[in-house]
Amino acid sequence: MNKEQYKLIENHMLSCMQDSAHDREHVYRVLFVALDIAQTEKADADVLIAACLLHDIARKDENETPSLCHAKLGAEKAKAFLLENGWDTDFAEKVFHCISAHRFRGNNPPESIEAKILFDADKIDVTGTLGIARTLVYNGAHAEPLYTLDKNALPSDGAADTEPSFFQEYKFKLEKVYGKLITKRGKEIAEERRKTAVSFYNDMLRETREPYKKGKEFLNSIID
Amino acid sequence: MNKEQYKLIENHMLSCMQDSAHDREHVYRVLFVALDIAQTEKADADVLIAACLLHDIARKDENETPSLCHAKLGAEKAKAFLLENGWDTDFAEKVFHCISAHRFRGNNPPESIEAKILFDADKIDVTGTLGIARTLVYNGAHAEPLYTLDKNALPSDGAADTEPSFFQEYKFKLEKVYGKLITKRGKEIAEERRKTAVSFYNDMLRETREPYKKGKEFLNSIID
Repeated sequence: MNKEQYKLIENHMLSCMQDSAHDREHVYRVLFVALDIAQTEKADADVLIAACLLHDIARKDENETPSLCHAKLGAEKAKAFLLENGWDTDFAEKVFHCISAHRFRGNNPPESIEAKILFDADKIDVTGTLGIARTLVYNGAHAEPLYTLDKNALPSDGAADTEPSFFQEYKFKLEKVYGKLITKRGKEIAEERRKTAVSFYNDMLRETREPYKKGKEFLNSIID
Repeated sequence: MNKEQYKLIENHMLSCMQDSAHDREHVYRVLFVALDIAQTEKADADVLIAACLLHDIARKDENETPSLCHAKLGAEKAKAFLLENGWDTDFAEKVFHCISAHRFRGNNPPESIEAKILFDADKIDVTGTLGIARTLVYNGAHAEPLYTLDKNALPSDGAADTEPSFFQEYKFKLEKVYGKLITKRGKEIAEERRKTAVSFYNDMLRETREPYKKGKEFLNSIID
């Protein structure tokens, strides 16, 4: 891929991006991590670059119309964009597959190595501190609380929660992402980052629960 | 203070709260930490409890009309509420002082021990993981990015930034809060929590910058 082709795809991506948790910097992080993983895999770098840059171009559509799947629609939009701009059908189909499979849940798993790398790179942005930070930003944008209270009116650890909160999302999604990686290098990067997320969650749970426990005792000893 | 009086003030607080970063759980955390600090200070527990519960009741007004100061207006509203509900002028004036001085910037510093404790307890909710989490929630609610890029197109550490972002807020506010605590126990709690915030920031800076550095090199070696 030459500079002009890269810029053409990059500018198309930039024109499609919008919200802050899945913003343009997420796309660059996914691209950069994907290129790291690709160093130890036999991947088509051009397909991978195009797929990474364009993988979230239908996020805006899904945000506006939640019944739409941004992976499926994004794959279609990316393919159409590439064909319109002189790439051949084979290239556009390969990119289509990567994007359509990048949030594999059930059917349509990532088959090509480029699709597996994009999948891993996208998942890695949910690991470590960036997974924590992006989740908290999402909580803020959707007015979701940091935690809810359990039946003893103490902060719940999230594990058995039914209401959305940061702790719930951590236990239901962030904590489980590490088992989903496919490539060797992807697993390695995710594993390196796991401890920063675990530390933050454990520290926050402690810094939140301890004051409630002690504070309630103090309060009960003061209030008649 | 008896249970009925506590419930009366608590319910008034709940009816006034709204947004998620400064929500009701912030108020309880401040109350609980304040009661911890009060164990080693000669403070009027009733004044402190009332001041903690009511300290942010004018947040909603400030959010709607940013020229209003929630500390000043909140103090007035709390005093009026207490006088209307049978507390005497001396008590209401003490609570008024605590709330009006709780975000001391320049004049009107916290003078009474109860005011100093509220000030510290409120600041402690900006330390450690809770400071990190509440800042990220704020970033999300205001569509602010995690970081901006420096002149080399690498994630800036925030220290010299002029645009708002999580890293900028960390360097300009979160990192500096530890020097502002007044009470001995307040300083101690803040210091215990400092390392969890420092770790998160350092980990996130590393997990963000490394992929950009490596990724840009990979990209330059691929793009003609």
